[in-house]
Amino acid sequence: MTVITRTLTVETRGNCHVIDITQDVTRELDSSGLSNGIVTVFIAGSTAGVTTIEYEDGLINDFKNAWERNIPRDIPYQHDKRWGDGNGYSHVRASMQGPSLTIPFANKKLVLGTWQQIVIVDFDNRSRSRKIVIQFLGE
Amino acid sequence: MTVITRTLTVETRGNCHVIDITQDVTRELDSSGLSNGIVTVFIAGSTAGVTTIEYEDGLINDFKNAWERNIPRDIPYQHDKRWGDGNGYSHVRASMQGPSLTIPFANKKLVLGTWQQIVIVDFDNRSRSRKIVIQFLGE
Amino acid sequence: MTVITRTLTVETRGNCHVIDITQDVTRELDSSGLSNGIVTVFIAGSTAGVTTIEYEDGLINDFKNAWERNIPRDIPYQHDKRWGDGNGYSHVRASMQGPSLTIPFANKKLVLGTWQQIVIVDFDNRSRSRKIVIQFLGE
Repeated sequence: MTVITRTLTVETRGNCHVIDITQDVTRELDSSGLSNGIVTVFIAGSTAGVTTIEYEDGLINDFKNAWERNIPRDIPYQHDKRWGDGNGYSHVRASMQGPSLTIPFANKKLVLGTWQQIVIVDFDNRSRSRKIVIQFLGE
Repeated sequence: MTVITRTLTVETRGNCHVIDITQDVTRELDSSGLSNGIVTVFIAGSTAGVTTIEYEDGLINDFKNAWERNIPRDIPYQHDKRWGDGNGYSHVRASMQGPSLTIPFANKKLVLGTWQQIVIVDFDNRSRSRKIVIQFLGE
Repeated sequence: MTVITRTLTVETRGNCHVIDITQDVTRELDSSGLSNGIVTVFIAGSTAGVTTIEYEDGLINDFKNAWERNIPRDIPYQHDKRWGDGNGYSHVRASMQGPSLTIPFANKKLVLGTWQQIVIVDFDNRSRSRKIVIQFLGE
């Protein structure tokens, strides 16, 4: 059993920008030489999240619209009054979504469904350079 | 330290069907022979999720009703216009809930609370046969 | 590779009480002697959750208000009719938030962002004594 830690930097546009990183994680798994274990995908920062989704444009828009309905940007946030960043809604969404995802792999393959992609979601209100940690524990 | 990967197939009814798999995970832990480590429960597919809940009928209905209020099925979704599956709401719910749960175990027991069960939630709009990966890392 | 399991007991006030446990996790990591791996933070119980947030008072209030809007306490819950605890909303919030968080560490440091704290959220409607498991897998 060993630990292999990789990092990925992704340029995002913010505003619920959803980015498919499945191929990045798969490539790192291939190069790790590991056969069985888990990969943890973690995004550093408090205005972004990690999940899986069927990555197609219609659904990506549905996902954005759902966040807009449930955690609207155009209502008052105390965070904005104190800090003036205007991204209070981004923080709340990120904390509800969560920054971490753990996926098993077996026989050198991630156990994802066919239409299930690993994505990061940038909830911030501006473009960002995001650091993603992709860490494997396995053998 | 070793990795043990098991799979479980569950027949679901969809429509926010919540299924308690605590006994399945416990049985696999018992048979693994491991004492300390983590188990990752992962559901393959983009219209289902994993979490914990106090598994009793009243609360299961409350949970379903909450999803229905927050991510309604009877509003337009772009995913449905493009693909015609009618399950856009299912995808959005699944991405917000998340497909993965990691639970520590110690001294051969999961560290769950007394009234805390491990469940999968099938958000899809039809019955499905679901593959769940139950993977242990430990010693 | 080894497993180290620690527990932390925290007194909470309920009502979406958010408690920063970053220093507790960091202290346990330091004392573990491990350099690389994952820590899983898990809260036992079905009315609390774990996530990360920028821990500042304004945002903590925004987070509480968002849960109050989306999963209100003052609507009927079947759980409350059956069990009389009055905390149906707490259970629903906890199941949506999730009880578990997995964070990589590398070179003896958690890979958190600068403004990203590890928090537990007690959604219950009363004060509780909460048991948190902090488990390290690494080398």
